[in-house]
Amino acid sequence: MEVMKVLHMNKGDGETSYANNSAVQGKIITTAKPVIEEAILGILCETFPESIGIADLGCSSGPNSLLVISEIIDIIHAKCLNLGRPSPEFRVSLNDLPGNDFNSIFDSLTAFFKKQKQEKGIGFGRCYISGVAGSFYDRLFPDKSLHFVHSSSSLHWLSQVPPALESNATPAALNKGKIYISKSSPQCVLDAYSLQFQNNFLIFLKSRAAEMVAGGRMVLSLMGRRSIDPTTEESCYQWELLAQALMSLVTERLIEEEKLDSFNAPYYAPCPEELKMAIQKEGSFIIDRLGHFEIDWDGGVEELTNTTLLPLSRGQRVAKTVRAVVESMFELHFGKAMMDLLFARYAEMVDDYLSKNRAKYINLVISIIKKDN
Amino acid sequence: MEVMKVLHMNKGDGETSYANNSAVQGKIITTAKPVIEEAILGILCETFPESIGIADLGCSSGPNSLLVISEIIDIIHAKCLNLGRPSPEFRVSLNDLPGNDFNSIFDSLTAFFKKQKQEKGIGFGRCYISGVAGSFYDRLFPDKSLHFVHSSSSLHWLSQVPPALESNATPAALNKGKIYISKSSPQCVLDAYSLQFQNNFLIFLKSRAAEMVAGGRMVLSLMGRRSIDPTTEESCYQWELLAQALMSLVTERLIEEEKLDSFNAPYYAPCPEELKMAIQKEGSFIIDRLGHFEIDWDGGVEELTNTTLLPLSRGQRVAKTVRAVVESMFELHFGKAMMDLLFARYAEMVDDYLSKNRAKYINLVISIIKKDN
Repeated sequence: MEVMKVLHMNKGDGETSYANNSAVQGKIITTAKPVIEEAILGILCETFPESIGIADLGCSSGPNSLLVISEIIDIIHAKCLNLGRPSPEFRVSLNDLPGNDFNSIFDSLTAFFKKQKQEKGIGFGRCYISGVAGSFYDRLFPDKSLHFVHSSSSLHWLSQVPPALESNATPAALNKGKIYISKSSPQCVLDAYSLQFQNNFLIFLKSRAAEMVAGGRMVLSLMGRRSIDPTTEESCYQWELLAQALMSLVTERLIEEEKLDSFNAPYYAPCPEELKMAIQKEGSFIIDRLGHFEIDWDGGVEELTNTTLLPLSRGQRVAKTVRAVVESMFELHFGKAMMDLLFARYAEMVDDYLSKNRAKYINLVISIIKKDN
Repeated sequence: MEVMKVLHMNKGDGETSYANNSAVQGKIITTAKPVIEEAILGILCETFPESIGIADLGCSSGPNSLLVISEIIDIIHAKCLNLGRPSPEFRVSLNDLPGNDFNSIFDSLTAFFKKQKQEKGIGFGRCYISGVAGSFYDRLFPDKSLHFVHSSSSLHWLSQVPPALESNATPAALNKGKIYISKSSPQCVLDAYSLQFQNNFLIFLKSRAAEMVAGGRMVLSLMGRRSIDPTTEESCYQWELLAQALMSLVTERLIEEEKLDSFNAPYYAPCPEELKMAIQKEGSFIIDRLGHFEIDWDGGVEELTNTTLLPLSRGQRVAKTVRAVVESMFELHFGKAMMDLLFARYAEMVDDYLSKNRAKYINLVISIIKKDN
């Protein structure tokens, strides 16, 4: 699977769109806000740039795309008011893969700028927002052009399925009946995933190191795990249930077993030690803060936006959130016709699981500082 | 009409899309290439920036969006080879109104970068391309961030219909039966258009002056006229024929007469003196070159890409080119249902006109240099 070409959040603003099913990711951004604030104040306390370069990597589309930018601008603007100085020129880059719906972000910019001006008045500095399409596992921005880099709910996506797991690389399916690391996965599957993450994260750090100024800061939040063991429920159970939903369609002969066996998600939930190790190995950044927080599978939000009149079950809400994110990949592999049934089945399984368990995603959040060269 | 919200080239890659009907605009870019080359070599001869900021304003979508960028990079790369030095870092911004199809541009970037690398090898400098949505009659880019600015087939679009002509501003239609300046237009219509252009072009120059470095250069090509008189055929006859096509639908009661009377195109084809005057008035730029060239209404291209098997008449090809550009505005005002008929009628009228006349668009091309502050 060519992840760069395939992976994108569901487009538009319909029932299954990411725009309408991204409250969990919005909650994650809001939860990490104190870390973002601390990092930005850290930058402003060292130097006060007249022009500040900001990038959001994996910006997606929908309400979350401008939410974090709005937060960042608010923080800087408040600090400037506090210091009695004009706010800097904001150079904001919104990045995602080329399949992302940038058109819808650009459509919302007029309203965004209007709101900023209304709220902040004429003291508000000029703000230039551009869209940058490409993989963050590569260079995206000019040398030393960024002061603050943010990424939320994105870095758990790998640039590719670990090569050792691609079906044409091995005679028999290594990860039979599973689509991510599972208790039944052999060690080589765990190792392949961990290695792919390490390789990707190293390239990510190296690319950003070239793009950031000394003293620049980066706040990253991503799905992760607390334990060293990658097979614990908190780290992989949402994939386990999705594999079970797929397996039920295999049993009913709606999906071929080989189709399931040959699919592996280009995803990895690292533990804090893995982040730490890669950052130390790459060498350009100092870790300022590394922690985690928990988010309910349904974001703890009782009412997600939905266009149906009946309230949705928690399982249905979780399924809609997951579908809006993974459908582009699943549709390509398993076929469009299976999607409604698959996610209905998944919703039932999630409901059943949640009736017996309190399921949480673990989000790692890390704040790092670019060293002087 | 809110031009900023309405005006966009026809999206997608279908029969009536701009992507498939923009050969004339492509020819204009290619024709202006020597002026672009002269300007860029002029920049490189003064200073040789390690990182060069380039913007294309009104980039549209389809093959033309990356055509001019490709030309600019080729010119700089060739000069570097010639001097035996590495090419600079390219910071490229592609700008258009928010309704432009940026998604399709971003989709084509992977192939674009691949081609650049293949052609130019490892000596090719890093190239960062971003999309910037907004009106060029406003600030778009950070202070002093650009070395070269280009715009082709865009600056003849006004930010709004001249206010004096908006139907709610006047009790009776001032420009009855016409949609642009015409031989029968009263002087106040001519004045309103000229004033709107002057105002727009002044803001354009002022915005760019702040964004460009001293010694930076700008090459602009746009529809224009040679004569001071704005009512000559070469300056407005394509609109005259479109008004006649609309009038024929009025006669057949398919369109209300008031609908036609209340439509005026947010377009102006200036004469060289108007450009000169505005540049002198604004004061930040020196004129290096100001000329014009002619392009046949059908671009002189015998076979435009089309998906029909029958060869198209010249009138049909002209109508398709014009439709791909103006349809967003016409559809909003006259209704979607009228579009096929309107442009079929227009094609007939163009065929008839071309059987008796050799019709040419006049393109003004101007190359200007940002003064030292």
